[in-house]
Amino acid sequence: MATITIDWQPDKAAAVPIYQQITNYFQHQIARGDWPMGAQLPSQRKLADQFGVNRSTLITALEELSAVGLITSNPGSGMVVSGNHWSSLLAEHVDWTKYVKAGQFKPNSHALQKINQFETDAVIRLSTGEPAPEQFPRALFKRAFAHLGQNLTSLNYTEPAGILALRQQIARHLQKVGIQTQPANILITSGSLQALQLVSVSLFPKNATIYTEAPTYVKSLHVFQSAHTRLAGVPMDDQGMAYWQMTPPTPDQHAIIYSIPTFNNPTGIVMSATRRQQLLQYAQEHRLPILEDAAYQDVWFDHQPPQPLKANDTSGNVIYFGSISKSLAPGLRIGWTVASQPVIDRLTDVRMQTDYGASSLSQLVLAEILADPDYETYQAHFRTVLAAKAARAQAILTHYWGDFATWQAPSGGFYLWVRLADWINIPKLFDLATAQNVLFNPGSIYDFQPNQYVRLSFSYESSERFERGIQILTRLIKANFHP
Amino acid sequence: MATITIDWQPDKAAAVPIYQQITNYFQHQIARGDWPMGAQLPSQRKLADQFGVNRSTLITALEELSAVGLITSNPGSGMVVSGNHWSSLLAEHVDWTKYVKAGQFKPNSHALQKINQFETDAVIRLSTGEPAPEQFPRALFKRAFAHLGQNLTSLNYTEPAGILALRQQIARHLQKVGIQTQPANILITSGSLQALQLVSVSLFPKNATIYTEAPTYVKSLHVFQSAHTRLAGVPMDDQGMAYWQMTPPTPDQHAIIYSIPTFNNPTGIVMSATRRQQLLQYAQEHRLPILEDAAYQDVWFDHQPPQPLKANDTSGNVIYFGSISKSLAPGLRIGWTVASQPVIDRLTDVRMQTDYGASSLSQLVLAEILADPDYETYQAHFRTVLAAKAARAQAILTHYWGDFATWQAPSGGFYLWVRLADWINIPKLFDLATAQNVLFNPGSIYDFQPNQYVRLSFSYESSERFERGIQILTRLIKANFHP
Ligand SMILES: Cc1ncc(COP(=O)(O)O)c(C=O)c1O
Ligand SMILES: Cc1ncc(COP(=O)(O)O)c(C=O)c1O
Repeated sequence: MATITIDWQPDKAAAVPIYQQITNYFQHQIARGDWPMGAQLPSQRKLADQFGVNRSTLITALEELSAVGLITSNPGSGMVVSGNHWSSLLAEHVDWTKYVKAGQFKPNSHALQKINQFETDAVIRLSTGEPAPEQFPRALFKRAFAHLGQNLTSLNYTEPAGILALRQQIARHLQKVGIQTQPANILITSGSLQALQLVSVSLFPKNATIYTEAPTYVKSLHVFQSAHTRLAGVPMDDQGMAYWQMTPPTPDQHAIIYSIPTFNNPTGIVMSATRRQQLLQYAQEHRLPILEDAAYQDVWFDHQPPQPLKANDTSGNVIYFGSISKSLAPGLRIGWTVASQPVIDRLTDVRMQTDYGASSLSQLVLAEILADPDYETYQAHFRTVLAAKAARAQAILTHYWGDFATWQAPSGGFYLWVRLADWINIPKLFDLATAQNVLFNPGSIYDFQPNQYVRLSFSYESSERFERGIQILTRLIKANFHP
Repeated sequence: MATITIDWQPDKAAAVPIYQQITNYFQHQIARGDWPMGAQLPSQRKLADQFGVNRSTLITALEELSAVGLITSNPGSGMVVSGNHWSSLLAEHVDWTKYVKAGQFKPNSHALQKINQFETDAVIRLSTGEPAPEQFPRALFKRAFAHLGQNLTSLNYTEPAGILALRQQIARHLQKVGIQTQPANILITSGSLQALQLVSVSLFPKNATIYTEAPTYVKSLHVFQSAHTRLAGVPMDDQGMAYWQMTPPTPDQHAIIYSIPTFNNPTGIVMSATRRQQLLQYAQEHRLPILEDAAYQDVWFDHQPPQPLKANDTSGNVIYFGSISKSLAPGLRIGWTVASQPVIDRLTDVRMQTDYGASSLSQLVLAEILADPDYETYQAHFRTVLAAKAARAQAILTHYWGDFATWQAPSGGFYLWVRLADWINIPKLFDLATAQNVLFNPGSIYDFQPNQYVRLSFSYESSERFERGIQILTRLIKANFHP
């Protein structure tokens, strides 16, 4: 079996971290074919000696190389070069994830990964921002399927902006929240996350500043970061974004506001009607375009929230993002973007190069369901159940956590944003809890700085399982932390 | 009403085209708020005088400004500033489309736009690369819907790489073409176009060279161009890509091969088994990773084509892209990528930031259908009908076009790649034909240079409508062109 020779050492004075110099060196040797596939690597001890580095630096480098598939370790036979040419390109791109991981949110990527990994397992998911499976309207879907089974005569590529019948239903649906629009101003996307992504790649200027509420929806931050923007968190009070606290951009800076005015994720805060008017005004004055994320628009408890910003946007300055994920079914992957026609046209163009449109099946099924007279009844029931679960969740928290936790009662959305007493170490609690199969989201993943918050979803789990989860967390808190 | 004053002139000595300097200037004035919304623009004559340019240059600039929504012309009242802050950003991004439009394929963007625009109207579509609606297996879908109607208990976000049951079905399906793989090596995407897009943004090095067959699938070229790669066309003979005609990259250049070895779009050429071995070998020697686009894998007529490159890829050097669009239904928007696990993991990561997964509904329906014992029967029937339509289309061409057209009989796929005699002006024929509601694809949109080919799809239209289309084209050719 081929072995390899090494006559190189990292440059300890260089700015590039040493482990990275090592991965670069391996990647280069393998990419050029100097180290053939299957070749045996020297032992870790020999490598560390040769490079003049300590074992832990070496291991960091080897782990990265093995994560991208350039080397594999076979028990017994040590490490061998396993890379194909893709692994080698992958290694070059390691910076891409680094970018995300090394950004503001680095300390939390560990938590996020664990959450993603566990989301599909049999655990108590107080982390999951989805409707409860029990609330899934089987009858509505069954009727839509039966109807399609009778009438569907083909499933071909659709109109670039989305099936017209669906855009018409969405336009009608939006009227109920005060947005007057028409199909030509609507683009159907694969969830609203895709819409954020499309806007980022096709409209954001490089190095733009994105003002977001702090805290805010974490996946939007990742999308914005990948578009090489600068993120600036703006605090909220109980009326919403405290816009006057942003440093206004100079005329030559590009800046954009991203807001979740209705049931902000994670805090549940609703921007008041007055604040909405003021924000629109401020944005107009400072020439700040606005992205309005309305994912939770339809999941209010007792009374409809104030009209969306878009409803009072006379200049086309607001791009509005809606989604069916929170009020019906995230698995449909359907969202809608409402904007002026040039913006819709551009986004549609880019989207046609991206994936050629959203699933026609999802679009057809959703158009059927939105047109079904029972959809209103379902929605009303959905909201009643959700409100009851929110109330129950708060009663549970008061009972178990009354001594060391505080929160604002939400008027809609899926989440309780709970502040825990300072003596509770949240990262540690997170690790203890996952080990017990209870998941929650540490508040720090949503914010620009560490904090004492956790986000608990009352939507996904039943109230019984919510209580069970809280009981386990309570036991962990009492056993491990003390005032 | 506000009017605006202009004290600026384009720099005629600058490298930036004059119309572009004008759009930049407008965009800047509007973005800074110097020209308020609703302000009246001087007349075209005054503007041309002020800028010292001729009317047609001015109009080019004004059209672009109006396309992005920065100005609108109201009949009667002339032009006014209409831009919101998004239009202003849009104007900044005009370069993005320019990039695509101004690339190798510029002369054809006109044709492509027309095609996109007409695809949804009631015309004879000899351009459409989709299964015929008549071949849509209603019974299979009806059964799948009924089954889901009974059993579906929720539609939530799915596993990041795609629903396991579907990945299992795909793995089983791939065995039939000689690919041994498992769910962990499969990523489900929203069509294979999305997979090409994901690979481009997450694995392509900047300034890489992409070797593609010439001619090749035009949308892949757009995706690659947007990733800022250099495209290099490689000729084909009747065995497929003539790989020895590529200039091998130097060790420090990054290069990647993109191939459609089976029923190449548009030519229908099938790479022979020997050529496949040679290409794999060549790629290995020159350290060229391979993208294998197998969109037409399952649509063969009389005998299965040679095994995919991926079936004989021992090193993980090939990324394989499959799709259900050509053999079942493009509207499902489902494709699958097969690659080594680090590559799948990376693509999955990026995809989760992009749109959070493909429609669960599409995935569930497809998993049902692939598992249905009747799927095989459907496929066999689909192929028989397709082969008959291909034969019929060729008989029609021989009858009407025998004197001035030549082509190779395809053994699968959707297309006839037809060379027309030199005296036929194809761009002109295209315009005449669209005016008569007949669409075909000029060969030049697929190639790196003008040519005398047209791509005719025999798949989408019935043979009767195919004949009708050819009759119209024949009449146009005879009336307008002469040997
Ligand atoms: C605020 C917010 N916006 C957007 C989304 C994305 O939803 P989808 O892509 O499913 O429409 C979510 C989901 O968690 C969200 O909380
Ligand atoms: C060669 C080739 N690859 C990929 C695609 C994209 O198909 P989809 O994104 O529907 O899977 C097409 C469709 O025309 C094609 O011809």
